[in-house]
Amino acid sequence: MAELSNALLEEILQQVRPLTRQGKVADYIPALAQVSPDYLGIAVLTREGTLYQAGDADVRFSIQSISKVLSLTLAQTRYQEQEIWQRVGKEPSGQPFNSLVQLEMERGKPRNPFINAGALVICDMLETRLTAPRQRMLEVVRQLCDEPSINYDRYVARSEFDHSARNAAIAWLMKSFGNFDNDVPGVLQTYFHYCSLAMSCQELARCFFYLANQGCPLGETTPILTVRQTRQINALLITSGMYDGAGEFAWRVGMPAKSGVGGGIIAIIPGEMTIAVWSPGLDASGNSLAGTAVLELLSEQLGCSIF
Amino acid sequence: MAELSNALLEEILQQVRPLTRQGKVADYIPALAQVSPDYLGIAVLTREGTLYQAGDADVRFSIQSISKVLSLTLAQTRYQEQEIWQRVGKEPSGQPFNSLVQLEMERGKPRNPFINAGALVICDMLETRLTAPRQRMLEVVRQLCDEPSINYDRYVARSEFDHSARNAAIAWLMKSFGNFDNDVPGVLQTYFHYCSLAMSCQELARCFFYLANQGCPLGETTPILTVRQTRQINALLITSGMYDGAGEFAWRVGMPAKSGVGGGIIAIIPGEMTIAVWSPGLDASGNSLAGTAVLELLSEQLGCSIF
Amino acid sequence: MAELSNALLEEILQQVRPLTRQGKVADYIPALAQVSPDYLGIAVLTREGTLYQAGDADVRFSIQSISKVLSLTLAQTRYQEQEIWQRVGKEPSGQPFNSLVQLEMERGKPRNPFINAGALVICDMLETRLTAPRQRMLEVVRQLCDEPSINYDRYVARSEFDHSARNAAIAWLMKSFGNFDNDVPGVLQTYFHYCSLAMSCQELARCFFYLANQGCPLGETTPILTVRQTRQINALLITSGMYDGAGEFAWRVGMPAKSGVGGGIIAIIPGEMTIAVWSPGLDASGNSLAGTAVLELLSEQLGCSIF
Amino acid sequence: MAELSNALLEEILQQVRPLTRQGKVADYIPALAQVSPDYLGIAVLTREGTLYQAGDADVRFSIQSISKVLSLTLAQTRYQEQEIWQRVGKEPSGQPFNSLVQLEMERGKPRNPFINAGALVICDMLETRLTAPRQRMLEVVRQLCDEPSINYDRYVARSEFDHSARNAAIAWLMKSFGNFDNDVPGVLQTYFHYCSLAMSCQELARCFFYLANQGCPLGETTPILTVRQTRQINALLITSGMYDGAGEFAWRVGMPAKSGVGGGIIAIIPGEMTIAVWSPGLDASGNSLAGTAVLELLSEQLGCSIF
Repeated sequence: MAELSNALLEEILQQVRPLTRQGKVADYIPALAQVSPDYLGIAVLTREGTLYQAGDADVRFSIQSISKVLSLTLAQTRYQEQEIWQRVGKEPSGQPFNSLVQLEMERGKPRNPFINAGALVICDMLETRLTAPRQRMLEVVRQLCDEPSINYDRYVARSEFDHSARNAAIAWLMKSFGNFDNDVPGVLQTYFHYCSLAMSCQELARCFFYLANQGCPLGETTPILTVRQTRQINALLITSGMYDGAGEFAWRVGMPAKSGVGGGIIAIIPGEMTIAVWSPGLDASGNSLAGTAVLELLSEQLGCSIF
Repeated sequence: MAELSNALLEEILQQVRPLTRQGKVADYIPALAQVSPDYLGIAVLTREGTLYQAGDADVRFSIQSISKVLSLTLAQTRYQEQEIWQRVGKEPSGQPFNSLVQLEMERGKPRNPFINAGALVICDMLETRLTAPRQRMLEVVRQLCDEPSINYDRYVARSEFDHSARNAAIAWLMKSFGNFDNDVPGVLQTYFHYCSLAMSCQELARCFFYLANQGCPLGETTPILTVRQTRQINALLITSGMYDGAGEFAWRVGMPAKSGVGGGIIAIIPGEMTIAVWSPGLDASGNSLAGTAVLELLSEQLGCSIF
Repeated sequence: MAELSNALLEEILQQVRPLTRQGKVADYIPALAQVSPDYLGIAVLTREGTLYQAGDADVRFSIQSISKVLSLTLAQTRYQEQEIWQRVGKEPSGQPFNSLVQLEMERGKPRNPFINAGALVICDMLETRLTAPRQRMLEVVRQLCDEPSINYDRYVARSEFDHSARNAAIAWLMKSFGNFDNDVPGVLQTYFHYCSLAMSCQELARCFFYLANQGCPLGETTPILTVRQTRQINALLITSGMYDGAGEFAWRVGMPAKSGVGGGIIAIIPGEMTIAVWSPGLDASGNSLAGTAVLELLSEQLGCSIF
Repeated sequence: MAELSNALLEEILQQVRPLTRQGKVADYIPALAQVSPDYLGIAVLTREGTLYQAGDADVRFSIQSISKVLSLTLAQTRYQEQEIWQRVGKEPSGQPFNSLVQLEMERGKPRNPFINAGALVICDMLETRLTAPRQRMLEVVRQLCDEPSINYDRYVARSEFDHSARNAAIAWLMKSFGNFDNDVPGVLQTYFHYCSLAMSCQELARCFFYLANQGCPLGETTPILTVRQTRQINALLITSGMYDGAGEFAWRVGMPAKSGVGGGIIAIIPGEMTIAVWSPGLDASGNSLAGTAVLELLSEQLGCSIF
């Protein structure tokens, strides 16, 4: 087994770099389509608090669906367990991430909180209990990262809102089944702001440290989630965190993880470390193609698959 | 074979009256739920212009989806044939009338103009080409019926709009596929106004006379549709006019027809007559239960099935 | 309006002939793939018994799914109405003709007797009540056509059986829901034999004369079906006779009709005539492309759409 | 945290025992329906080779779908990685375990090797490469357990075969897509024999020891699978091992596991232990209801969730 070091990360990035051009950068909004496919970065934060990194680890990008883990975390701090899970399921969807078919068949209850419909329900719940859900999320993220400059990319958020027809359809469909309480455009605004959070691999690795550390953020003694809640999120991540490619990802990499169409992936090795990678080119399932390859190599070389 | 007369209609209504209580009055909006299930009426207008009637033939009710035939007719007067049929199909859906599953699978192109999605696309098209689509529809209907007092039921229209989540989802989904051009709430308003038209069986029989008369309204010499367009509508009615019960209805009754959840049905015998029936109780497919039975008896006794 | 004559039919065939090469000959079994796409024939038999014809009207071909109308007719002579319709529905499927999706969702009850699943159920019923269902069908068809040389094409039947995996899957699925009583391979053999019936346009027009004549075959005084049963078949044909293209066909042609992948179509104008056309090239829905065009032209020129 | 001991297991069984009557014993074949719902057993085998147990840990039962893990293991020893995964996927299905819908949409390629369709493909592959696939499986299992008396329950196997219509439909559907090479009834026979293996919790815990031990069976030095293959199976188990309840199970218990409708569950804690539980009553997803509860309690008390 290899040992974790900046040099190892550097070496892995070099091996994987040719793949960066094989993926397809998300192009459904101009703000994402303009990002260069050549970025490639990784940051690893061990439980002891040591940070390793290589490549573009400090360049910020749009975290997109990775924010769905943060929304769920926030909801877990404001709602009882059963209040959440009666409105959203825990099963992988087996369908494209923004499909309405399943949502209609299952009468407006999304399969899990990491598909769009599920994240919209979670945002709807936050809208109900938080007075300023966008501001509150910023505060949480800035505190988790100890980095006050983290912010939304308002150009991205606006661009998403201008192309929001399908998410509007999803929200209205849930409303028709009684599973959506607040104003649709308002919740969509919040949802798109969360997606537009701009963070670097370094910041992501630190932000999600609590998932590798039994709920407790780096440098803090007060956990933000219980051990039980932390395990629940990690379990959901492994079955539903990688869109339609969750099975393949678990098979190849073997870690709970969440990806975003901005090309970022945050992976958790419970009790050991968090790993954030970024490469904008996506595979057919919408996950970073080179990013997945980086994680696969790292998993093999460190022998750190959870299986 | 029996001969058409008021007495025959009266007799048929008496036979069918026990069925009026077996159907279920539409209850998704209060305005419809309040209607008594005891209404039962029929009006027949022959090609010669003779009107026969029985029961509550002059009581107005909410025509609901019957208005979809009028929207299509209006669109046919403003659009080229291919402009319409590239945006909406001609096939029966084989699915509940407001399902999103098929719409998603077929990338936002509704199966036919008589399911909600299809009628919304047609309304979207009218919004584009008519300056005042609600006013224009009123004028058309009033003229077809020679009855200036026909109007929208604004209480019904508003009630529909307040329960429009699913139709909003449908419209937004079509917009996400590029098959919806105008503002969603605006088109929904028009759509619900059309649905809220209040008309009696007498008025309906006269209104749709043109479908039994090669496109020409009663008492007029200028057709509003060509013979070809008229046949096309009648063909679409027989395959798709009765929601999920089109096959059963053709099998039992054998006439092109369109129903509405208000309990009305307009049936056409091309070249011979129009028949309007009304009984608010619906069967499992959403068609008037007693109304269908009336048409079945009439078809048998007059031998007027088109098959 | 034009008048029916051999010359008119000839003229229509000439207009349509260029289309014969635009369709795609069925190629799922070698026996069908070998047929030349250049055949084009039509036969019209009026209620008075006059036969008009043009092109390859006396060349026999594989009638394939057209035989499903004969199976249903035979079943109607051996079963009560409700015995049939509790095992098979009356609605258009809205799905490809051999889809299992709908069949599974609807717990093994096929949508109608003209999709494969429905025809297999009907064959299963015939297997139960007829001692020699293959021999019996031959007798019926030979008598309807007054032509003792009509026979199965055993090479086609065998070829179908060798490629029967999907139909076997359909039959076993229905068996799993309790809607299939007899031995699967045995019923498949019967089903494929029926499909392999080799008949010419002339013979088809005569065979189905009873559907245009209130149930009574040509030259007979005893009907084989009641008026009611005849109307029921014609109604089912218009909503479900042309695979997924039933709506389009009704819209363009306006006649109850049934097609087969051999390229034949039999169309009925109730009370007036039967029309059989043949051209092996198929459109995307599996209906004869040039054959449909022939019927459309004939419908326009004779003004004989039922709408 | 509690420490693993027979007393702890005993205590957990006592807590859970009231739940044994809340599940529903599988009743689709008589052989399973007759089993008493009162059985409850557990066996834990640690990596050091120590066995802990409580309740009916030495009573044999029908392992049913747990055998799918053995078939896959056997296939992995006879086929190259890509030969397997081009014929069967790695994703959770999101559908009931024996659904044909998805299989048809995905053109005969099953979602994963743990749904029926996937296991049938694996059995088809074994049929191709093994001369006596039933005998070979027995040898493998007897050797893994060091227990020559393990055998098929031929009454169960025959009973399954007599109710095999749906599995026959699945196999024929795959054959229609070219993803099934051998004779359908023959492969079904093999498949049902594998399902009918009768084993106790003790035997199961020992049999699957290799999955907790990097591919190496208890007491052996030669692994039957590579480390990589072992991790792959464990990954597939966590995303697809528990039918439609995989997400919920990961969320509650947090271990790779496979269940069978006989009420058994084998769970793996990689590098640490195997756990076999048995209670015949099933939950709505088809997993042992009390068995799941036992595993949840054990996971909490030992803190052995992999998350």
